[in-house]
Amino acid sequence: MTNSLKDQLQHKIDLKTKPTGSLGQLERIALQIGMIQQTLSPELKNPAMLVFAGDHGLADAGVSPYPKEVTWQMVMNFCAGGAAINVFCKQNGINLKVVDAGVDFYFPKDMPVINAKVDMGTKNMLEEPAMTVEQCQEAMMRGAELVKSEAAAGCNVIGFGEMGIGNTSASSLLMHRFLGLPIEQCTGKGAGMVGDKLDYKTSVLKTVSEKYNPTSVEETLATFGGFEIAMMTGAILEARRQQMVILVDGFITTAATLTAIQFDASVRDNCIFCHASEEQGHQLILEHLQAEPVLSLGMRLGEGSGAAVAYPVIQAAATFLNEMASFEDAGVSNKG
Amino acid sequence: MTNSLKDQLQHKIDLKTKPTGSLGQLERIALQIGMIQQTLSPELKNPAMLVFAGDHGLADAGVSPYPKEVTWQMVMNFCAGGAAINVFCKQNGINLKVVDAGVDFYFPKDMPVINAKVDMGTKNMLEEPAMTVEQCQEAMMRGAELVKSEAAAGCNVIGFGEMGIGNTSASSLLMHRFLGLPIEQCTGKGAGMVGDKLDYKTSVLKTVSEKYNPTSVEETLATFGGFEIAMMTGAILEARRQQMVILVDGFITTAATLTAIQFDASVRDNCIFCHASEEQGHQLILEHLQAEPVLSLGMRLGEGSGAAVAYPVIQAAATFLNEMASFEDAGVSNKG
Repeated sequence: MTNSLKDQLQHKIDLKTKPTGSLGQLERIALQIGMIQQTLSPELKNPAMLVFAGDHGLADAGVSPYPKEVTWQMVMNFCAGGAAINVFCKQNGINLKVVDAGVDFYFPKDMPVINAKVDMGTKNMLEEPAMTVEQCQEAMMRGAELVKSEAAAGCNVIGFGEMGIGNTSASSLLMHRFLGLPIEQCTGKGAGMVGDKLDYKTSVLKTVSEKYNPTSVEETLATFGGFEIAMMTGAILEARRQQMVILVDGFITTAATLTAIQFDASVRDNCIFCHASEEQGHQLILEHLQAEPVLSLGMRLGEGSGAAVAYPVIQAAATFLNEMASFEDAGVSNKG
Repeated sequence: MTNSLKDQLQHKIDLKTKPTGSLGQLERIALQIGMIQQTLSPELKNPAMLVFAGDHGLADAGVSPYPKEVTWQMVMNFCAGGAAINVFCKQNGINLKVVDAGVDFYFPKDMPVINAKVDMGTKNMLEEPAMTVEQCQEAMMRGAELVKSEAAAGCNVIGFGEMGIGNTSASSLLMHRFLGLPIEQCTGKGAGMVGDKLDYKTSVLKTVSEKYNPTSVEETLATFGGFEIAMMTGAILEARRQQMVILVDGFITTAATLTAIQFDASVRDNCIFCHASEEQGHQLILEHLQAEPVLSLGMRLGEGSGAAVAYPVIQAAATFLNEMASFEDAGVSNKG
């Protein structure tokens, strides 16, 4: 009788020169990566980070402390290399690509932005659904295509980030619908809505929520989502199909992951939840998914920054599995 | 009136293109590193990891599930590159050095072990103090010399690790004395003492504790410590004098740090507490020192492994402070 791959991986982990279980969560990540790649010697190759940017019609209702033009300005900042995601990707050898999923701005042609624009931002949900179902399908398809290109280029570990003034609101609405939790529990300060401002944001989201009754996952995503969120959802689904390790970032990425899981529950197997953000709601989704975040640094920046910072810790899991000696190899006595 | 460096650092952090405070703990680490180096543009250079190994006479009383020869066998494993600390240092570009502080074994001359041996292991504390005060001073002095060499070679960030069968027992006794906590709260499973075995270990430590009444910090360290712990204590004190960033690992290293703080409270300013280990007692010392650990991965391996895995996260703090654009540089609108 042959042992299952899972048993063989656990056995390999247990024979490394260390007390049993003493690498904690790194051991569970090593096991997960081995299972994703279906091998005893998994390798993380050509890590990529796709950052999707999109504008939100609901930003006109004042749900963020930052003006809407910050979305395109930050895309320019990504292109100039000055944002958090740039410096963390550079530090950790992650190949960063910036995608215009639906920003309300035409970027100069010579800028390193992938043009996957579905529209010039979503509609204001206080008036109509964020996008049509056709636009949602288009966004998901484009996200999937981008991941296929990365896979074809030899990438087997991918993170997703986002930029979009107003996108914590869309994420709160999606988790509210998919988890059935009250909107108050799903709404947080985002980029800095505290006190009365948070109450206002919550009341806007309540009004939006009461206005619609989408019946399918796709319709829910179209109604409450954003172009960057829909594109990320399609990207995540394709990353699962490509058997990639998926690095899940903060609240918005996790809401997209939750959406992807509604389409295909097996996506969960490929996800490493890179950090627990400060954003209210993120913790609740993580709990629902029984996710054990790698970092808990109180970050709440988005852009994929938490995933980029966590990446070397995840690498450490593959590193020890491949490179550490066993008790036998090293001539070290195991416990009696 | 000029602002203090601390205010200037905070101002620099706040003007980066991100919501205020959104990098969480990374912002506090950036501030700390800037204050240690007394500059607005701190750099981490030539990171080093010194791993001190020593044997413990108390191991003869069966306080570890592993036999005593594992100490020298693991040193051989460090030299062959097969231990956790090797693979994590290699991954993260940390210069690893292995130091024989007092192992009960003569290593072959051609092995890459720094010979700083004080004696062939400590005495069994059930019978006599672990070492003499003179030996303790000698160990501390040798640890300090090693750190001076690293500083002279351009290293300004240093981690410390340890290997020594029986050294969680020594650490429990030191924290018990310095924090005035009951021995039961300070004693944990170490490399795997659970159930009856943990009760046995606790009762041995209780017997040891009741036998001695050292009156100074130095005498306490000599009575209950280990050669690797005393050498690490001297090394930590010197790292503070050299204004280095000190990467504190798990339970044993933190016990040595606590000891160094008894000698010089200002050591605390230079310490980054890299992880919260699973070991009972570690959490209690961290609380006492009001330390906010970088990682909480349930690791309990020692060797400096938690510090080595956390290093890229700490680097990320310096990276964002030096490399991210400000709102003004990037032409991004700040919040209204």
